[in-house]
Amino acid sequence: MVIVQKYGGTSVGSIERIKAVAERVARARKNGNGVAVIVSAMSGETDKLIALANKVALNPEGREMDLLLSSGERISAALTAMAISSLGVKALSLTGRQVGIITDDAHTSAKIEKISGETVKKALAKGFVPVIAGFQGITQTSEVTTLGRGGSDLTAVAIAAALEADLCEIYTDVDGVYTTDPNIVPEARKLDKISYDEMLELASLGAKVLQTRSVEFAKIYDVPVVVRSSFNDNPGTLVVKEDRDMEKVVVSGVAYDKNQSKITVTAVPDKPGVAARLFQAIAGAHIVVDMIVQNVSSDRKETDISFTVPKSDSEKALKITGEIVSELGAKEVKLREDIAKVSVVGVGMRTHSGVAAKMFGTLAQHRINIMMISTSEIKVSCIIDSKYTELAVRVLHDAFGLDAVRKTRGKSRR
Amino acid sequence: MVIVQKYGGTSVGSIERIKAVAERVARARKNGNGVAVIVSAMSGETDKLIALANKVALNPEGREMDLLLSSGERISAALTAMAISSLGVKALSLTGRQVGIITDDAHTSAKIEKISGETVKKALAKGFVPVIAGFQGITQTSEVTTLGRGGSDLTAVAIAAALEADLCEIYTDVDGVYTTDPNIVPEARKLDKISYDEMLELASLGAKVLQTRSVEFAKIYDVPVVVRSSFNDNPGTLVVKEDRDMEKVVVSGVAYDKNQSKITVTAVPDKPGVAARLFQAIAGAHIVVDMIVQNVSSDRKETDISFTVPKSDSEKALKITGEIVSELGAKEVKLREDIAKVSVVGVGMRTHSGVAAKMFGTLAQHRINIMMISTSEIKVSCIIDSKYTELAVRVLHDAFGLDAVRKTRGKSRR
Repeated sequence: MVIVQKYGGTSVGSIERIKAVAERVARARKNGNGVAVIVSAMSGETDKLIALANKVALNPEGREMDLLLSSGERISAALTAMAISSLGVKALSLTGRQVGIITDDAHTSAKIEKISGETVKKALAKGFVPVIAGFQGITQTSEVTTLGRGGSDLTAVAIAAALEADLCEIYTDVDGVYTTDPNIVPEARKLDKISYDEMLELASLGAKVLQTRSVEFAKIYDVPVVVRSSFNDNPGTLVVKEDRDMEKVVVSGVAYDKNQSKITVTAVPDKPGVAARLFQAIAGAHIVVDMIVQNVSSDRKETDISFTVPKSDSEKALKITGEIVSELGAKEVKLREDIAKVSVVGVGMRTHSGVAAKMFGTLAQHRINIMMISTSEIKVSCIIDSKYTELAVRVLHDAFGLDAVRKTRGKSRR
Repeated sequence: MVIVQKYGGTSVGSIERIKAVAERVARARKNGNGVAVIVSAMSGETDKLIALANKVALNPEGREMDLLLSSGERISAALTAMAISSLGVKALSLTGRQVGIITDDAHTSAKIEKISGETVKKALAKGFVPVIAGFQGITQTSEVTTLGRGGSDLTAVAIAAALEADLCEIYTDVDGVYTTDPNIVPEARKLDKISYDEMLELASLGAKVLQTRSVEFAKIYDVPVVVRSSFNDNPGTLVVKEDRDMEKVVVSGVAYDKNQSKITVTAVPDKPGVAARLFQAIAGAHIVVDMIVQNVSSDRKETDISFTVPKSDSEKALKITGEIVSELGAKEVKLREDIAKVSVVGVGMRTHSGVAAKMFGTLAQHRINIMMISTSEIKVSCIIDSKYTELAVRVLHDAFGLDAVRKTRGKSRR
C-alpha cells in the first residue's frame, strides 16, 4: 500500500512529538507500506513568524510573507526526516519546490496548478520515506508561494492524488470528525465515516479538522482521507465518496460558526440592479459574502437586504455599503456582530424531507429566534442571536438523535 | 556606486535591529547608490536549530541540516525586505537559489562553484534593493546546501564580485579589526586599513570578525571589503590589496587561539615515510592539522613529532595516533590540551627582519616557555602554555608598539 501521512502543527509541536511521529512512520514502513509524509510547521511557529512580520512592517508584502512562512514547514520537514532516519528507516526531506508543486502567483493563498510528484515517486521507489514540507509551492517563475491556512492538508491530498495513494491520513490532535463540538455537547459522537460533501459543509461551517479546499480536491480526485489523532491509535473518521449507508442517516452533524456578522440595508427600492450594484462593490473589495436574504414587501415597493460577511471584514463591508446607501436611495445600514450560524448537515436530506421543519420547530420550542435561513441539498443553516449558540447546538444535536449509537455506521469508538 | 551590505546575526537580532538595518539601507539607497543586502540568521537562531536537530537525532544527516539551517537566513531576508519596503524603498527578498548560487554537494560546508547574479542585477536595474539570504546555495541537482559557519560573509563577497560592486560592507557588532582582542588589551587600537593577507592570518588565527574563505575570495576577485559596526556610524576597517603604506608597519596585530590541542609522539624511528604514514591517517579522518614540529636527535636515530589539531578533534586524533604508534615502532603518544597559539601578523615582516627574534625575546623576558614555533611570510606563531595567553598577548602588543597612534595609517578612531 502507498500511504500519505500528514502531521499537523501539534503533532510535530515538540521534539517528543516529532519522535512519536517518526515511530509511527517507521511502523507503517515496517508493515511493508510505501509512506510519504507531509508536515506542518511546529505549532505556534507560523503565528510567531506572522507576529514578527507585523512588528517589522505595517503591511508586509505577500511575496515576503510567503518566503517567511514557508520556513516553518522546512524546519519541521528537516527535523522529522532526521528523526525517522535515526530509527534506521531511510528518509529524506523535500521542499514544495523539490516536489514540483507549481502554483499560481496569488501570494499567501496560492492555488496549486500542477504537481509532478516525480521526486516523491523516485524516493518511494528507492525505499525512502519522503518528508515533504507542506503548505508551499513555487510559481512558474520560481517565486516561493504558500497555500493559505491549513494548506498542508491540501499538499497532502494533492500528493496523495499524484501518487494515486491508497490512503491519505491526516493526523491531528482530535480523534476525528464529531457530530458536533464535544466542548458544547459532551455526548457528541465521533463519526466513523462521512462523505466528502458532508465534510465540506462541516469544514466550511467551522469544524476546523480539515481545510475546505483539501476536501474539494480529495472529492475531485477521489482520494480516501482519514482524519485521526497522532496522540493515540484510534481509527479516526474516514472521508470518502457517498455510499448507500450514508443516505440512511438524515443528519450527520451540527456545526456552528461565530465568526460572521450581519449587515442589513433597510428600505431599498425594489428595482432591478440594486442587489447587483451592492454585491459587486462588496466582491470588489475581496469580501466573501456567505448568506443573503431579501424580503420584499409588495405594498411599499421597498425591500430589506441582509447578508453575512466574516467578522474580520465587517467594518470594511459596512463602510462600502454605507457609501452605496444614498446612491441606492436606501434608508440606512445596520451592522450586527452578535450573531451565530447554526447548521445541520447530512447527505440523507436529499432523500428525506422534514429536516428544515424539524430544525425550525426545535429552535422555536426553545424560543430561539431565527434571523436568516439558507439551505443547500445537504444542509440547513440558521442565523441566530449568538448568545443562544450553545443551546441551539445542544437541542439540535439531541433532536436529530446524534448521540445515539447508530448501527448503520458501525460501532462508535470513543 | 554599487554597494553590497552584509548584516550579521546580531545586526538583525531583533525587530529593533532589523528596523535599524532598514534605515541604514534606505539611507545608502537615498544617497543614490545601488544597494544589495545579504543577511545572516537572527542571532541565536542557528544555534537553536542545531540544538533541535541534536535532540531529534544522534547524527543528523548533512543534507537535512542544510534544509534546516538555511531557514534562518530566509526568515531574516523576508523580514528585512519587509522593513525596507515599509520605509518606502523598493526591496525584495531572494534565496540562495533565486540568486543562482550553485555549490558543490559537500553538505554543511559547500563550496561555491558558480554564481550568476542575474536576478540581483535585474533587481538593482529596476531600482529594488535585493535582500539575499546568506549562507546558502543549491547544487546542480537542486539540493539545498549551506556554506559553513560565517558563510554569509562569503555570500556577500561572492555577490560583490559578481556585481563588480564598488564596496562590500560587512556589518557586525564591533567597530572593525583591532590590533588585538580589546577584552585582553584595553589599549587595542582599531585598524583603519589592513591587507587581505594580514586579514587572512588574523581571521584564521581566531579574530572572528570575518570568515577566512570570504577573505580569500575577496583577495582573488579584488573586492574591497569594509568591516564595521551596525550599531554606530564609525568608519570601520578597510580590507584591501597591500599597498606601500602598509609595508612600513612591521606588525599589524597580535592574535591568539585557545582552540588547539597538542599531540606528541615520542621516540619515533627516524626513517622515511613515518611522518607520511601518520599524517595520512589523520587527514583520512578529516582532521585539519595546523602546526607540525619534528625534532631529530641525530645520536639516537629517533625523533619526537608534535602537532596541533582543533580541540574538538583531539580525542579522535589521539585514538588514530595511538593505533599507529606500535606500527611505527614509536614509544608513546601524549595529548596536551592546555595550550594556546599566540601570533604576530604584519605584511611589513616581508621587508623587515628581527620580528621573530623580538617575539621570542619578549616572551622569554616574561618567562613564557615556547613549545612550538611556526612562521609564514607575514606571521610568527608560538605555542605556549594556555595560562599565559593573556599575558603573552599584552606584552607582545606592547613590545610591537601597537597601542601607539600610527601616523602612517592615519588617525585612529576609537
